[in-house]
Amino acid sequence: MSINQGLLDALRPAARLAPASGIVEMVNHGLEREGLIPLWAGEGDLPTPKFIRNAAVASLGAGETFYTYQRGIPLLRRAISDYMTRLYGDAFPFEPERFFVTGSGMQAIQIAVASVAGPGSSVLVPTPTWPNFPAAAELSGAEVITVLMAFEDGRWQLDIDTLFDAARPDTKAVFINSPGNPTGWTASDEELQKILSRARRQGLWIIADEIYARFYYGAANDGFRADSFHDLAEPDDRILYVNTLSKNWAMTGWRIGWIEAPPVLGTVIENLIQYSTSGVATFIQKAAVTALNDGDDFITEQVARARAGRDVVTEALSKLPQVQVSPPEGAFYYFFAVDGVEDSRKLGFEMIDQAGIGLAPGTAFGPGGEAFMRLCFIRQAASLREAMDRLVKMLG
Amino acid sequence: MSINQGLLDALRPAARLAPASGIVEMVNHGLEREGLIPLWAGEGDLPTPKFIRNAAVASLGAGETFYTYQRGIPLLRRAISDYMTRLYGDAFPFEPERFFVTGSGMQAIQIAVASVAGPGSSVLVPTPTWPNFPAAAELSGAEVITVLMAFEDGRWQLDIDTLFDAARPDTKAVFINSPGNPTGWTASDEELQKILSRARRQGLWIIADEIYARFYYGAANDGFRADSFHDLAEPDDRILYVNTLSKNWAMTGWRIGWIEAPPVLGTVIENLIQYSTSGVATFIQKAAVTALNDGDDFITEQVARARAGRDVVTEALSKLPQVQVSPPEGAFYYFFAVDGVEDSRKLGFEMIDQAGIGLAPGTAFGPGGEAFMRLCFIRQAASLREAMDRLVKMLG
Repeated sequence: MSINQGLLDALRPAARLAPASGIVEMVNHGLEREGLIPLWAGEGDLPTPKFIRNAAVASLGAGETFYTYQRGIPLLRRAISDYMTRLYGDAFPFEPERFFVTGSGMQAIQIAVASVAGPGSSVLVPTPTWPNFPAAAELSGAEVITVLMAFEDGRWQLDIDTLFDAARPDTKAVFINSPGNPTGWTASDEELQKILSRARRQGLWIIADEIYARFYYGAANDGFRADSFHDLAEPDDRILYVNTLSKNWAMTGWRIGWIEAPPVLGTVIENLIQYSTSGVATFIQKAAVTALNDGDDFITEQVARARAGRDVVTEALSKLPQVQVSPPEGAFYYFFAVDGVEDSRKLGFEMIDQAGIGLAPGTAFGPGGEAFMRLCFIRQAASLREAMDRLVKMLG
Repeated sequence: MSINQGLLDALRPAARLAPASGIVEMVNHGLEREGLIPLWAGEGDLPTPKFIRNAAVASLGAGETFYTYQRGIPLLRRAISDYMTRLYGDAFPFEPERFFVTGSGMQAIQIAVASVAGPGSSVLVPTPTWPNFPAAAELSGAEVITVLMAFEDGRWQLDIDTLFDAARPDTKAVFINSPGNPTGWTASDEELQKILSRARRQGLWIIADEIYARFYYGAANDGFRADSFHDLAEPDDRILYVNTLSKNWAMTGWRIGWIEAPPVLGTVIENLIQYSTSGVATFIQKAAVTALNDGDDFITEQVARARAGRDVVTEALSKLPQVQVSPPEGAFYYFFAVDGVEDSRKLGFEMIDQAGIGLAPGTAFGPGGEAFMRLCFIRQAASLREAMDRLVKMLG
C-alpha cells in the first residue's frame, strides 16, 4: 500500500467518501480558459454594487477588525428583521432575535441540519437538488432519503404525499427549496400548506430554503415574491429558514447569510456558529446592513436582469428540437435535457472545450437530473445571447 | 410541556447539549460596559495594520466579489508556502499544494477533526485547553478523552506517556497545541519527538495547533519561534496543521486561516470546505497575501508588544501572594489561580462588575483549569498597567 493510499484510508470514511462537487470539477477545468462564458455557478456577471462595497471600505477604514458577536452585530439583525417585514408583511413577528448571521447560506444550511439531524437519523430531500444540502446532511452523520420529483410536460413537479410517505421513524427533517435550484420548481400556497400540515403531523423539522424568493416569474403576490412558509406558519413552528446575501445583492463572494429560527434556539445556534467559524467579519456585516437597508432598488434590477436572461434562453432553446423544457417559474436557472445525451458530465466538458461555455452537469444534482444541464441566466443579455448562439451552433 | 421546551427537545442532543462558551458568556455580560479593559479574548488592542486593510480595499475597489477557488486563491497558497519556508527553513518541502485556506483557524480545526474522527471514534485532548477544539470534536460525533496536565511550581507540564496511554482502540487523533492556549505550555524538541514517535507507533493523527509559534519567550531557535513538528516530521506523516492569520497580523475579526496537510488529502479537504462555507472572500484573501508577504516587521512588533505585556503582568502578579505562577514560555496568556477562589466564573463576573476588567474564567478551559483565570497580555503597556492596578487593588 502506498503512503498516499494509507493516508486516505486513515481518514474518516464519511469525509473521504463525500462526493466531490460536479460543479467545482467543471469550474476547475474551465476557470482560466480564455473567452469562456461561465453559466455554471449560481451567480451573475455584476460585481457587488459600489454603495455596498463602500460600506465595507468605511468599516475597514474605521479599524473594525476585531472579534464580534457570534450571532451577528445587532445592527445587522435589525436590518434583516426590517427587510423581512418589508417583504412578507408585519403579520409575522420578525423580531431581530430570530436571526443569526452565518458565514454564507451554505453555513446556514450546515448549521441548520447539524441542529436537528446527525448519526442515527435521516432527512428527506426531493431531487434533483442543489447538491450541497444532501452533502452537508451526510457529513453531519445523517442519512439522506432522496425522493424523485417528476419531469412532466417540461416542468418539474413534487408529489408531497410521496415525499412525506418516504419518512421513517428516524426521519427528523425535510428540505424544501422553493423556488428551487436547479429545477425552478416553486411551491404554491396550497402546496406549502400541505407540506406544513404533514410536517406538523409527523413531527418533522422543515429546513426552508427560500433564497430565490425574489426571483419569481409567476403571478402570486403580484409577482413581487414567491409564496413562503411565512405566509402560513407560526413563529414557533419547527422551521429553520436558511438565507444568503449572495443572490439578491450580487454578493456571492462575500460569504454571508443567515438562519431564521425560533429565538429559544439562540444559544444552540450561537454555539454551533462559535464552534465552526466563530462569526463573520464586522466589515462584511456592515456591507450587509447597507445592502439590506438601501438595496431594494438593486434587487429590482437584479430580478429584471434575470427575467430578461430567461427570455433570451427561452428563445434560443426553442430552436433546439432535442430540448423540451418550459420556462422555470422561479430561481435563475434553466435545467434541461438534450435528447440522445445521457452523460451530462461529458457534455459539460465538451461545452467548455468546443463551445467555450460553462454549464453545470446534472450529475451534480442527485437522482433524476443525470441527463440534464443547468444554465444560470442572470447575466447581461448580450453575453448571454453570445453564449446561446454558441450552444445552438454546437447542438443544432 | 411548553412550546419552547418542545422545540429544544426536538433538536439533535449533541447540538442542544454543546457547552456554551464561558468566554462568550463573559463577553456578552461585559462588552458594552463603559471603561472596561477587555483581556478575555485572544486578541490585542491594535486594529489590523493599514497596509493590510488597504489590500482588501483595493480588491473591493476592483470588484473582486465573486465565488472563487474552494482551496484558496493560488496567490495566497503561494504566500503561505513562502512564509512557512522563511519561518521553518527549506528542509521541509512547503509546496503550495499543502495549504488550504479556511474561514478562520476555528474552521481549520473543525475541518481537520471532521476529516479524521466522527461517530464511533475518539480523540485525545490534554487539558486545560482552548475549549473550541473539544467542542468541535464532539460536534463531529467523536468522543473526547481529556488528559490532565499537571501544574507544578507555577508551570504546566504534559506527561506524554500518560497522554498516549489514554488512547483506546477507537482513538483516531491527538490534539497538540504548542505554544498552548491557555497554559503557555510549549513543547521542547524532545517532547515533540516523543509525541511524534508514539503517534506513529499507535497510528494516530496529530492535529497540530502551532498558531502561537511566534509568541515564544524561550531560547530555542534563537527565540525566533517555538519548536515545531516541521523540524522533525516527514511531509507525509499523519499530521494536520491548523493555523490562522488572527494572531501574528492582528486579524482576529477577519476569519481566515489555513490547514496544512499532505496534498493527497486535497479533494477531501476541498469537499469539506465546499460543504461548510464554500470558500473565503477574495478580498480577504488578498489582504492575507499582503500580510504574509509584507508583514514580517509587524509580527516583530506584535511579539515585542506581547513580551512587554508579559513583563507588566509578571510584575503585578508578583505583588499578590495568593497568586503562584511562572511567566509562560509561549502564547500571550497568563493562566493563574487565586488562592481561596474556587469558582472562577463567579470571580470573572466580579472582575467585570467591581474592577472593570474582563478575564476569561478557567471553567471555560476544561478539566484542571476550573480555579484559574486567563488574562491576555498582548496590549498597550499603559492600558495593561491600568488593568493590573485594578486587579491588584481588587485582590490585594
